[in-house]
Amino acid sequence: MEKATRQHTKAHNQRLVLNKIYHTPKISRAGVARMTGLTRSTVSENVSELILEGLVAEIGHGKSAGGKPPILLDVVDDARQIIGIDLASGEFRGAIVNLRGAIQHRINLPVENRSGEMAFELVFNIIDQLVAKADTPLLGIGIGTPGLIDAGSGVVQNAVNLDWQNLPVADILKEHYLLPIFIANDSQLSALAEYNFGESHRVPNLMLIKIGRGVGAGVILNQQLHYGDGFGAGEIGHIKVEENGELCRCGNYGCLETRLSSRYIRWKAKELALKNNDSLLNQFAATQKEITNEDVLKAYQGGDPCVQNIVKEVGTRLGKALTYLVSFLDINRIVIAGSVSMFGDGLINPAIQELKAGTLSALSNNLEVHVSSLGEDIVILGSAGMVLQNELGIF
Amino acid sequence: MEKATRQHTKAHNQRLVLNKIYHTPKISRAGVARMTGLTRSTVSENVSELILEGLVAEIGHGKSAGGKPPILLDVVDDARQIIGIDLASGEFRGAIVNLRGAIQHRINLPVENRSGEMAFELVFNIIDQLVAKADTPLLGIGIGTPGLIDAGSGVVQNAVNLDWQNLPVADILKEHYLLPIFIANDSQLSALAEYNFGESHRVPNLMLIKIGRGVGAGVILNQQLHYGDGFGAGEIGHIKVEENGELCRCGNYGCLETRLSSRYIRWKAKELALKNNDSLLNQFAATQKEITNEDVLKAYQGGDPCVQNIVKEVGTRLGKALTYLVSFLDINRIVIAGSVSMFGDGLINPAIQELKAGTLSALSNNLEVHVSSLGEDIVILGSAGMVLQNELGIF
Repeated sequence: MEKATRQHTKAHNQRLVLNKIYHTPKISRAGVARMTGLTRSTVSENVSELILEGLVAEIGHGKSAGGKPPILLDVVDDARQIIGIDLASGEFRGAIVNLRGAIQHRINLPVENRSGEMAFELVFNIIDQLVAKADTPLLGIGIGTPGLIDAGSGVVQNAVNLDWQNLPVADILKEHYLLPIFIANDSQLSALAEYNFGESHRVPNLMLIKIGRGVGAGVILNQQLHYGDGFGAGEIGHIKVEENGELCRCGNYGCLETRLSSRYIRWKAKELALKNNDSLLNQFAATQKEITNEDVLKAYQGGDPCVQNIVKEVGTRLGKALTYLVSFLDINRIVIAGSVSMFGDGLINPAIQELKAGTLSALSNNLEVHVSSLGEDIVILGSAGMVLQNELGIF
Repeated sequence: MEKATRQHTKAHNQRLVLNKIYHTPKISRAGVARMTGLTRSTVSENVSELILEGLVAEIGHGKSAGGKPPILLDVVDDARQIIGIDLASGEFRGAIVNLRGAIQHRINLPVENRSGEMAFELVFNIIDQLVAKADTPLLGIGIGTPGLIDAGSGVVQNAVNLDWQNLPVADILKEHYLLPIFIANDSQLSALAEYNFGESHRVPNLMLIKIGRGVGAGVILNQQLHYGDGFGAGEIGHIKVEENGELCRCGNYGCLETRLSSRYIRWKAKELALKNNDSLLNQFAATQKEITNEDVLKAYQGGDPCVQNIVKEVGTRLGKALTYLVSFLDINRIVIAGSVSMFGDGLINPAIQELKAGTLSALSNNLEVHVSSLGEDIVILGSAGMVLQNELGIF
């Protein structure tokens, strides 16, 4: 509840005007004034500046309400480009996106077990290639990565998969590229992607569960990404769910991600195939060959009962975790992302069943659980959304 | 991100000024201007109005910084009174409190199994008595009750203990008393009480777990009480925690509150006493006499190993539920309230142990778990805080 200084007010008003135009295509200056409560002259002044910066354009005339027909405004979607980077999967993925999250150029580089400095070199490499492809001014670079990331200072506190500790990623890249740099946890950014560009566009409260090699979550509360007191919000992968469970890569036993991850599904599929001659995965049982996510999906779609049971078990486990989160926060919109979301309803239906059995009906009656439609681009888009919010105040 | 109309702006600025004076005792007009970014003349105008309304007073002069010594301002704590009502326990409790949450008059009325209309009569009764005792203008009436309460419209959607369904409590009382009326869930309001008047004063993110006959939670996120999409946030009592658990009063089996409540502790204490001659509660074993919370506390303090084990078990259960909430939200401040909090460290230590074993250390390293110091007044104070926020913008 801070009232800002005059300089702040000016910047705040310009963001307010841009945000309104962004979310209300074909709005007039008078419409912006009405919706923001700013005076006509303040709006006109701000719109002029935004047109000068190329961010907003006049796109024609609306219907007259008696007098002069109003001039309609819109954001110029391609006025700026944003680089979004996803360091969360087996390959580093990067893309150039426009102000509406449309992907315009894409580069994927295999990580091949690089970590530490080698992995950082690869980040430079992918950004170099993307910067070279940019053909309008870059608004900034956003990066998503698993781990504990201080999104405020841009420091990676701990990213186990990359072997980065207390690494001031934003500062290092800022010095090199002379561009605004933002970095945050990949699951948190996935929630932002869904809020900005997904089917849950501007849903004020939503939770996203990203299930891939590990499991993480992101949560939008009151239209804002919630980072938590130590930027660790959504780190649900290491909740202990079994007293004498499997060894987790974190060193503890029985963590949620030992039961809710693509790793677990592949491991369990192979184990069951060993005991079951009917399994479509039986070919892998006696070999050293690794089962891939695609192998498991094919067996699942082929009706393999072993795999179908595993997916159901994993969905139930997801539902059990959600009973706590839904009961505590009463959030109706739940989005599932990550590679394990490929099982769709096979995963979601047992989760919903478990949720409904394990919470008050008043909390579960209005639930909407669905798979994100953003697919593999979700972290890239979330990274771009973070730049959009920080640099232009669009959220 | 709405810019308000002129009328709104004026009201907003006055709330801003009052809020700043409330939280910064002995501030000068210049200090308010500096901290809010409002102009000196806007601040002076607003302060004059607040003085006229009796809410703010000049309380002396500060040190001169060369020129005229500044006039110091403060809120007049007794300028208004608020009625806070707690319908969550075995008796209805009400109090008159001042603007700082100091309790000035108190009335408790035994409920004696009243529900439905009879319970509502008792609410009129307690408010009548409190209104009669008020000796300064009443700001409004706040009410806290278990159940699903639409705090926006003041409608009790479902309060099982009172047998109220879809009851427009705020409207009914507003018509009768011609005062602003607010009603919300008792556990949610307990979190607000802790934020407004407790040891967690203005801690931006905190979660409160209230464990009494049932168990509920409240959560402050970014300085705001989070109600949830359907006002059900914090309804954790009916999370299914055991597959073949005890029958819960909600009709399901294995709900959290069958294992985490004063009811469970008393039941389990009696059951164990039956089997254990050494138990200090053995006297109750063969009788029909009910064990009270005080009996259990006395046995606990007397070193009864049965009761100590039960409290430890309940603390562990609390810790297990918290692993989900802490991992998902990364909130460092956890407050325990309700009658079961009387066991203090006996409850909290096993909860912390379970939490630390069941979450990433990065999430649990900075945790602070403590018992609320607000005791039995917590719902009354939360109710008063809700009136304070809605009527004066103080939060």
